[in-house]
Amino acid sequence: MTSPDTSFRLRYGSELPFDPPSVWSEVIARQLDHRSVRSYRPDPVSDEALTALVAAAQSAPTSGNLQLWSVVAVREDDRRTRLATLAGDQDFIRQAPLFLIWLADLARARQVTTELGAATAEGADFVEAAVLAFVDVALAAQNASLAAESLGLGTVFVGAIRNRPLDVAAELGLPPHVFPVFGLTVGHPDRIAETAVKPRLPQQAVLHHERYELGPQAAQVEAYEATLNDFYSRAGLRAGWIDRVATRFGSITGLNGREHLRQALNTQGFPLR
Amino acid sequence: MTSPDTSFRLRYGSELPFDPPSVWSEVIARQLDHRSVRSYRPDPVSDEALTALVAAAQSAPTSGNLQLWSVVAVREDDRRTRLATLAGDQDFIRQAPLFLIWLADLARARQVTTELGAATAEGADFVEAAVLAFVDVALAAQNASLAAESLGLGTVFVGAIRNRPLDVAAELGLPPHVFPVFGLTVGHPDRIAETAVKPRLPQQAVLHHERYELGPQAAQVEAYEATLNDFYSRAGLRAGWIDRVATRFGSITGLNGREHLRQALNTQGFPLR
Repeated sequence: MTSPDTSFRLRYGSELPFDPPSVWSEVIARQLDHRSVRSYRPDPVSDEALTALVAAAQSAPTSGNLQLWSVVAVREDDRRTRLATLAGDQDFIRQAPLFLIWLADLARARQVTTELGAATAEGADFVEAAVLAFVDVALAAQNASLAAESLGLGTVFVGAIRNRPLDVAAELGLPPHVFPVFGLTVGHPDRIAETAVKPRLPQQAVLHHERYELGPQAAQVEAYEATLNDFYSRAGLRAGWIDRVATRFGSITGLNGREHLRQALNTQGFPLR
Repeated sequence: MTSPDTSFRLRYGSELPFDPPSVWSEVIARQLDHRSVRSYRPDPVSDEALTALVAAAQSAPTSGNLQLWSVVAVREDDRRTRLATLAGDQDFIRQAPLFLIWLADLARARQVTTELGAATAEGADFVEAAVLAFVDVALAAQNASLAAESLGLGTVFVGAIRNRPLDVAAELGLPPHVFPVFGLTVGHPDRIAETAVKPRLPQQAVLHHERYELGPQAAQVEAYEATLNDFYSRAGLRAGWIDRVATRFGSITGLNGREHLRQALNTQGFPLR
């Protein structure tokens, strides 16, 4: 188990802005050791591992026990290749033996509501229902991802399935009221291409006490920019955090087609009232 | 560490529809043992524990390393009491020594984009930006919740802060482009009021292979209804899963004010283009 001191130094960069906590657990050590894995050996992920991952996902909290999500496990080469193309043409998706597509699922709840209970499922038309489903599926998927890491597997979330979500929906046969939120590749990491723990913003930038403060964050961002530049330059990469954020939000181009997400949600049966 | 067999039986009810997996870890055992805790001893949550929880949260994946979330730690009695009233008037929020309010935070990224980078942050006006932030904050909060459980603390997510989100925003001094998504109470569980692991839908209802199937889920829901009725009746409660789902989505009344969520998001600087 990694020591708190080492884990914190890796997670927050070279400077440690506070004493490491005296409280610690194997779970927390595993969480802090998270890194994205985009390079996999060809070995398959076993059915037993998939069962454990989904059980972990289902054990996550779900608002009102509504369980507004589903997941499609994609293993077939052809389908994974097509999905990789749809999701930003990314090779690591083709390489990973298992691609989990996590779905916001209001179809099951609508069916239960209208066929077995009330006359309509009007409540499911609102933004609130989409928020319930998107939060539910994220809580579940994070449990699955951490569970995978605890078994020695590597994962990475793939938001790029939202570049062309209706094509993904067609590929997976999704009915109305089911929407692909993100993918998660799972596989045995290729240790030769192992990635490092990426430093995050100083904890003071995201943790507020009693009331939120935006002003002091500029200094934290400046410190983080230096930390991350150092991290990237050791990996032979250019561009710090500020450039990356500005590229994503500075223009519609940075959204890679996801500027049409509202329309796609509407088409797929999420009117977002 | 709980055995796979016991964990699976508790999580999926009395009938075990598949063999327990041969793969297992302390992380997965902890995940399957999750239960909502709504009864707390008065002992405070230490600063060290809070630091560890937030480090765990920050270690969760975040799309493009954008880190589009923040969290406000509320410990003051008066503020917690006011928030409890806003969030469905729930006593356990007053009782918990720590109430974490998890925020979708586009303000920091907008500031970075406009003041330090590009001329505008137009990309942050889209539904996609809200999805990025809502997913980011959920991944982070699930890590924090599991980390808390690994330290012997209890938690429960509180979606009811979305009943009156603008009042919550005012209470926490949230600027535009920051939105309260859910709360999380944290405290030392009152073991006398310990709750049981709640059974979830059969795994076959949520896990699909290659393509999604809605049809077969009706039978799974029926089996689950029986499992959950059994679970609730042992706790002296009535109403199964179908009734609960139908109550939530069968009419606008079931949304408890959250039918105004889109308007509240717009007001708080999430135009959802």
